[in-house]
Amino acid sequence: MSGLRRTAAPAWTLLRALRAFSARPRDRIVETVGKLLQTKAQLETEEGKKSFVPKTPKGTQDFSPKQMAIREKVFSTIINCFKRHGAEVIDTPVFELTETLTGKYGEDSKLIYDLKDQGGELLSLRYDLTVPFARYLAMNKITNIKRYHIAKVYRRDNPVMTRGRYREFCQCDFDIAGQCDPMIPDAECLKIIHEILSALQLGNFLIKVNDRRILSGVFAACGVPESKLQAACSTVDKLNKMTWEDVKNEMVGEKGLAPEAADHIGEYVQLRGGLDLIEQLLQDPRLSQNKLAGEGLRDMKLLFEYLMLFGIVDKISFDLSLARGLNYYTGVIYEAVLIQQQNDHVKELVDVGSVVGGGRYDGLVGMFDSKKKKVPCVGFSIGIERIFSIMNCKAEASKEKIRTTETQVLVAAPQKHFLAARMKLISELWDAGIKAEMLYRENPKLLKQLHYCEDTGIPLAAIIGEQELKDGVVKLRDVATRQEVRTLACQSWVRGVQRMLQKSTYCKSSKHSLGLLRSSW
Amino acid sequence: MSGLRRTAAPAWTLLRALRAFSARPRDRIVETVGKLLQTKAQLETEEGKKSFVPKTPKGTQDFSPKQMAIREKVFSTIINCFKRHGAEVIDTPVFELTETLTGKYGEDSKLIYDLKDQGGELLSLRYDLTVPFARYLAMNKITNIKRYHIAKVYRRDNPVMTRGRYREFCQCDFDIAGQCDPMIPDAECLKIIHEILSALQLGNFLIKVNDRRILSGVFAACGVPESKLQAACSTVDKLNKMTWEDVKNEMVGEKGLAPEAADHIGEYVQLRGGLDLIEQLLQDPRLSQNKLAGEGLRDMKLLFEYLMLFGIVDKISFDLSLARGLNYYTGVIYEAVLIQQQNDHVKELVDVGSVVGGGRYDGLVGMFDSKKKKVPCVGFSIGIERIFSIMNCKAEASKEKIRTTETQVLVAAPQKHFLAARMKLISELWDAGIKAEMLYRENPKLLKQLHYCEDTGIPLAAIIGEQELKDGVVKLRDVATRQEVRTLACQSWVRGVQRMLQKSTYCKSSKHSLGLLRSSW
Repeated sequence: MSGLRRTAAPAWTLLRALRAFSARPRDRIVETVGKLLQTKAQLETEEGKKSFVPKTPKGTQDFSPKQMAIREKVFSTIINCFKRHGAEVIDTPVFELTETLTGKYGEDSKLIYDLKDQGGELLSLRYDLTVPFARYLAMNKITNIKRYHIAKVYRRDNPVMTRGRYREFCQCDFDIAGQCDPMIPDAECLKIIHEILSALQLGNFLIKVNDRRILSGVFAACGVPESKLQAACSTVDKLNKMTWEDVKNEMVGEKGLAPEAADHIGEYVQLRGGLDLIEQLLQDPRLSQNKLAGEGLRDMKLLFEYLMLFGIVDKISFDLSLARGLNYYTGVIYEAVLIQQQNDHVKELVDVGSVVGGGRYDGLVGMFDSKKKKVPCVGFSIGIERIFSIMNCKAEASKEKIRTTETQVLVAAPQKHFLAARMKLISELWDAGIKAEMLYRENPKLLKQLHYCEDTGIPLAAIIGEQELKDGVVKLRDVATRQEVRTLACQSWVRGVQRMLQKSTYCKSSKHSLGLLRSSW
Repeated sequence: MSGLRRTAAPAWTLLRALRAFSARPRDRIVETVGKLLQTKAQLETEEGKKSFVPKTPKGTQDFSPKQMAIREKVFSTIINCFKRHGAEVIDTPVFELTETLTGKYGEDSKLIYDLKDQGGELLSLRYDLTVPFARYLAMNKITNIKRYHIAKVYRRDNPVMTRGRYREFCQCDFDIAGQCDPMIPDAECLKIIHEILSALQLGNFLIKVNDRRILSGVFAACGVPESKLQAACSTVDKLNKMTWEDVKNEMVGEKGLAPEAADHIGEYVQLRGGLDLIEQLLQDPRLSQNKLAGEGLRDMKLLFEYLMLFGIVDKISFDLSLARGLNYYTGVIYEAVLIQQQNDHVKELVDVGSVVGGGRYDGLVGMFDSKKKKVPCVGFSIGIERIFSIMNCKAEASKEKIRTTETQVLVAAPQKHFLAARMKLISELWDAGIKAEMLYRENPKLLKQLHYCEDTGIPLAAIIGEQELKDGVVKLRDVATRQEVRTLACQSWVRGVQRMLQKSTYCKSSKHSLGLLRSSW
């Protein structure tokens, strides 16, 4: 009977149980429900086993060789720029003590991934690279460093994969720590962002700049009490997505600001411009009385002077609506946005939003120091996934064939029983540092071997057959032109390969494609 | 009174509580103990706050710029070799669905890091790169790929940092998946290991080779029942750390094998050699009757023939004691060990043990496929941390100065008020792709600027002062030779820098050091 029940279809089981449920006395109900639950669990497990489809966790992704080729091109552009500016590189663990991350991200702390308590320390996956950097400086008593760090970070956010928002994503961080004269490293950060976005050819971009001190000054001058500063700040940050009317309503309705205060704020935060605007605000009686705002404005003026020397002021917009979420910023803040796509194919990605964000955070390192010793820092983080999704679209649209390997020579044979000869030849190429492949078959067809070259973009085939063996030569074939030369199969044949590789037109054309997309590790 | 107690020293608090404990009636005991615990907790919290020392989690480490320079040199050597053999690159998430890892690591599963259940899927940090690779193949129905993957993996193991054993560590994996003729890709894997270990100049090494089928055949021929095969296997694996006597005792005592069976096994697993040994075993009546062992031995013979063609057979040892822990291996297995250190300074690292391990696993991908479709795979994993700890020791012992940046030019000024001029000059260098730095000070001393060049190995200083400004030139100074030339400060001055960089002796010498240790990203 119980055996029958176990093999019965779910509907039957349910029916049988329901009958039992109504027919039997009350004290049997619990037992029956228990059995029902058991059956349910069993059915689910069996179904689970049947339908286990291998997949990546929600909000994460694998990268195929083709995607990796594009990613490594982006990374190499960014790293070259970081190195051009004299940066060192560091690395830190993927998880930190939970305590290290506590109290650094405000409301966003709920998005932190915690590890299960399996005994020992409590750990969390890093949320960004800035807090680990500050921890690293404090732990090693470093007061001066210019470093970059490229690594994955983790946020239990709502993923929007099409817009490049993931739960696991890569950040490219550049920061300058140490006592410097005002705005010199800050200006260099903006110069680097400008260089990188230009080099990546993502279309037109704009770097918005503001200063937390100016923002605080504006709020104070407009009569916002200290306690409501952060709230007002985060509402202002929505100005790029909402109209001023809506922002004002939120300020007055939800955040409880006085309508007049909101109106005053509105006069300021809708301003954007350049040196003119800075001068104008420096003359503003309400703002100039505020110590913080005055400092911020004078520094902003200095920054613009430096940016003019760097020749990048045309892409910079002093924008009083820029506030930025994270609350560790203490001075200049900035954000780079793509404002237009030149390529028609990727128009839907206009909305990709900010691709770089950063600013000055002079207090963060001190939070980790036992004596609260401050190390002033300024830096930025490049959101590589958004950039990558644009590059990916571009690559797909252009239909340009992307090479995922760098193989230069395929060692091939036209007849059977030449595996040993192929192995000896390829070994000589490898030992000479030449990138070479052979098919993993004892007797592959010549056509198959030549097709493999064409499919994967290998420019040269080194062919050894009966005739070649007899003559003591190797035949070198330019895959694109089908031109063939014979070279002596002695030690010098490797040099023959090298010469031919230099001449090969196919090689040049594939070098061209490599130039755009080769990996640079 | 209670206020007093709260501020009292712990000893006093304890004394007071003890007195209360003995003086008061029993029903107050609970209350008193409660208060005591409260005090204890309070004191601990206060102490905790005071003594929060920023640190990395147990078994993990940060990498400083100097360490990163060495690491990137190692990575670049490895990656160059992988590319020379035509490998593509992929990447996968740092965590997988827990289900993906379940049942793949046998006993070692207890070392897997789980993430906290914060709602949604159950996740675990990857334990190696092989299982994610198999999951990737099955998920994307890929039946043919040669790829490498370099990434961190996680094991809740007992860390032994001095021997390069960490909880977070980097693996460099290379695998060939797909239907191939026997032993061709297997031989290439060994060739690659040979190339990499030679290129890294870690001293002498040996690659031990065996085959799971031969091992199974040996056990079967010696009368070990199927059920005790895995246990016998893992005991044999200890032969490199224990004497045969101890291994035998464990087999008989703990694993319950018959003493005669153990003796028979002993005759085999202490054998090591080359083609001779393979021939000898192929003649062995007990082994040759076993189907699996016969297959394994014939493949081993083929493998040795291929390795001779590749010219690497002198570093290969057919070693019947090699068993390897992971149970997904189905054919050839191998392990590379460093057998001697040439450099006296790092003698203590002789014991570093295996640095590469791998083998054939033809069943793993099928475990992820709904139709159990198999994809034959062979590959290996390089334990980079052990290699890195040796390289690190070498670097420290050699006292060679390691450059952590690639900066070519420092833009300097000998007088005050030349910040603007420096900024304009450096901007031109950056735009021309030259790696340049300047000090982040308005008016740094010239000596300080030149010392910075010497400290960080910058070969060239571009100096702009009053005289230079008047004459419309820039002074280029070779930091090592102190030779100076003047070049017109027009557009062409950048070319002057490039010319000087080519000539610079300091540049050449630092290029030399870079050649050994520059990062190659």
